[in-house]
Amino acid sequence: MDKLAITPYLDEISVLITSHLQQVLPAAWEVPARLKEAMNYSLMAGGKRLRPLLVIAAAEALQGSREAAIPVACAVEMVHTYSLIHDDLPAMDDDDFRRGKPTNHKVFGEAMAILAGDALLTHAFYSVVQASKQHGIPAEAALAIVEDLARFAGPSGMVGGQVADMEGEQGLTELDQLRYIHEHKTGDLIVFCLKAGGRISAASSEQLQALETFGRSIGLAFQIQDDILDLIGDESKLGKKTQSDVKQQKVTYPYFTGLEGSRAEVERLTKIAKEAISNGVIPHPERLIGIANYLVHRDH
Amino acid sequence: MDKLAITPYLDEISVLITSHLQQVLPAAWEVPARLKEAMNYSLMAGGKRLRPLLVIAAAEALQGSREAAIPVACAVEMVHTYSLIHDDLPAMDDDDFRRGKPTNHKVFGEAMAILAGDALLTHAFYSVVQASKQHGIPAEAALAIVEDLARFAGPSGMVGGQVADMEGEQGLTELDQLRYIHEHKTGDLIVFCLKAGGRISAASSEQLQALETFGRSIGLAFQIQDDILDLIGDESKLGKKTQSDVKQQKVTYPYFTGLEGSRAEVERLTKIAKEAISNGVIPHPERLIGIANYLVHRDH
Repeated sequence: MDKLAITPYLDEISVLITSHLQQVLPAAWEVPARLKEAMNYSLMAGGKRLRPLLVIAAAEALQGSREAAIPVACAVEMVHTYSLIHDDLPAMDDDDFRRGKPTNHKVFGEAMAILAGDALLTHAFYSVVQASKQHGIPAEAALAIVEDLARFAGPSGMVGGQVADMEGEQGLTELDQLRYIHEHKTGDLIVFCLKAGGRISAASSEQLQALETFGRSIGLAFQIQDDILDLIGDESKLGKKTQSDVKQQKVTYPYFTGLEGSRAEVERLTKIAKEAISNGVIPHPERLIGIANYLVHRDH
Repeated sequence: MDKLAITPYLDEISVLITSHLQQVLPAAWEVPARLKEAMNYSLMAGGKRLRPLLVIAAAEALQGSREAAIPVACAVEMVHTYSLIHDDLPAMDDDDFRRGKPTNHKVFGEAMAILAGDALLTHAFYSVVQASKQHGIPAEAALAIVEDLARFAGPSGMVGGQVADMEGEQGLTELDQLRYIHEHKTGDLIVFCLKAGGRISAASSEQLQALETFGRSIGLAFQIQDDILDLIGDESKLGKKTQSDVKQQKVTYPYFTGLEGSRAEVERLTKIAKEAISNGVIPHPERLIGIANYLVHRDH
């Protein structure tokens, strides 16, 4: 499947997830209006919906239920969104814009941005439980998804990667440090998506392992590609200032391996990813392969 | 059981939970050292361990396993601790001290304090799962605890209460607004403790309802008592400046009902709490009753 053939699927899932994210808080709940507004503002601020897509594509690669995958797909987008809100705060990256729109704290103030992030992170776990309560995923599988989400998003996962990134701003000297940051800050949540999709579809441990290898490889490839695009990309396409990392003297992948070395690494990792799911262990790997090709060839 | 008879039990649980909180991150995990330090700093900063106590006492009131209750008790203390770290931030209450010690962001900086809070909140859900994986609580019960934790700590629970509190700083005009804040900012997590203890011990829905009524009532009584102590309490015993809420012109319960009216309300709520669990539906309510008496008579 080539790059273009996957785009209708990407668009379909993006529309589906955006629609579900709009109603992610149960209507009967009493939630302060301004908090709900702040949560929705960032959830609706666009983005590729890459993580929800991976959950659903993984579930469907094993012939699992799309309906059951949706609450988990929404959960991971909530976790991703909370991490962006907190990362943008003045005490962190101090960003005024994201995807061409004012960041959450610029619109709602710092206190509300912190709380909207906290609320999204907390509510993500509620959403995972709904895969079991509303769509019949066995409690054991849903509980394993909760455990994975806590682990891959927590102190040894995404938050750990964010801390390492912050500490690394004082100067990274080794590629291994950067790989650690990429693996945890971005990669872990992507691995979660693949495994969660697998668990929704009652994957065997062999299948979970294949999905994890796929996720680990495309997660790192995705982040290296991000570093490359940030260096060479077109400002309007990326929706943020390019070379911003260079200006902030942030060390990225091309700094260590050069642009061509980084491109070769993206190709190498994408190949590993595709091979892991193409040996018959995953019944329908075509869309996951299409997504891997899409990510490596994307220009924004 | 009078106030004094319960204190050995309180002390025993406090020591037990503090010891478990010290090893709450699996030893094999790679967690950035400074993040681990920041998480532990606030987890070990003292406090009454009231919430873990309520989880364990509720589980034991139904003859459930203390061992299985411990990971859930640790989880609720992590959620409570994260909420304190984030509340203390400059963008929120801007507090330099808590329990006589510098607040997390004064020691580790704002960025790390935000991330340590995020990590504690995330890891709380991991800890709940361990009650099932390590201590045989059925997956359905553990998943219900996850759902309750997300609901009572999330946008319609604790975070919602925090937002209402923040918005109320511009001036509360009605007691109902203050009750909403108390019910959600403090009360919901206390209700969670009681229900979670019940779920660990396979409580019937009638028993869960009794525990919820008990929790709802002592939760509000606890917060009104806090307002009273803040007005009249002894500075050294509270470990923070008294009348601080008055100085900040923060509206508290005695503002609406007077000191005697507030005391009467604490007594009334405590009576409701005790009656809810004393009608035979809870096999061993004695310690929960002892805790209710302790809370209403505490002087710090």
